[in-house]
Amino acid sequence: MLRDLDLPATLATRSSQIVLRRATSDDLDQLMALLADDPVSAARGDVAAPNDRLAYLDALEQIIGDASNDLLVAADPAGRLVGTFQLTHIPGMARRGATRLQVEAVRVRSESRSSGIGGAMMNWVTDVAAPTLGSPLVQLTSDVDRTDAHRFYERLGFHGSHVGFKYRIPAETSWDE
Amino acid sequence: MLRDLDLPATLATRSSQIVLRRATSDDLDQLMALLADDPVSAARGDVAAPNDRLAYLDALEQIIGDASNDLLVAADPAGRLVGTFQLTHIPGMARRGATRLQVEAVRVRSESRSSGIGGAMMNWVTDVAAPTLGSPLVQLTSDVDRTDAHRFYERLGFHGSHVGFKYRIPAETSWDE
Repeated sequence: MLRDLDLPATLATRSSQIVLRRATSDDLDQLMALLADDPVSAARGDVAAPNDRLAYLDALEQIIGDASNDLLVAADPAGRLVGTFQLTHIPGMARRGATRLQVEAVRVRSESRSSGIGGAMMNWVTDVAAPTLGSPLVQLTSDVDRTDAHRFYERLGFHGSHVGFKYRIPAETSWDE
Repeated sequence: MLRDLDLPATLATRSSQIVLRRATSDDLDQLMALLADDPVSAARGDVAAPNDRLAYLDALEQIIGDASNDLLVAADPAGRLVGTFQLTHIPGMARRGATRLQVEAVRVRSESRSSGIGGAMMNWVTDVAAPTLGSPLVQLTSDVDRTDAHRFYERLGFHGSHVGFKYRIPAETSWDE
């Protein structure tokens, strides 16, 4: 289970080190800022609007309260959040009953990019988290427009072997929650 | 939660109807046969080997026992399994705290293909399951080699907007379970 992961963990980046730890509700405002600090997310409505704060808080509490999910954050030596990603541990029948470790919503603070933070986080996922959980497969999807991210994942040993399909439910059939 | 979905459900295909229901451990052998009845899965080791039966049973029990996951099966009027897929309900911060409904391991019995079973199952996911769960987004990945499947998902309204990356953990660092 994800709660078995040994956190916090100190990870080395190219110029410094970061502390990877589980997010708490105290991180909410910095997490909203990290999401908004990304053009693709911002285009989907993640703009850190004060009116959305309760929706993000509810989502954060759902993630933290779910044993199959965890939201991780990376803090720099000054304690500022410089990165985040979500892990989901998924049991499955395929590949002879292999569990999968899924990564979602990887974000690095824009002014901290190209300093090795993303690589340090993803190396921890593949080299520490997945083996600890007994998951032979790590998976994630990345928007086709994020070509820099694709090269980044390929350098880390990921293979873009799949097409990621999304279906948006028309607003009128979705619950207004 | 997935347990709120109203199942079993009777779905119309082009020529007949199927009953969609939650899998039980009694379905294990037919599920192993469905996985093996697919060249891409078989190439990854899903060959319905008797020695793998306990691994599949363990996986099935993990899925059934996890409130965020469910394995569904579609049976024809004679009670034979003709299709299966897995649902995972994933909370998330992105898209203003939207939950996602993820579909994995969609399989239709080879001799029953092109009869509308896959479409009936996926329409149920997008038109019934996702709205019931309040998930504005359904997502899945499909191997780049499954070009027929890609056209199928696009016809149903899915958009191949992402690249799906996989990282296989080297065997020596994975637990031998």
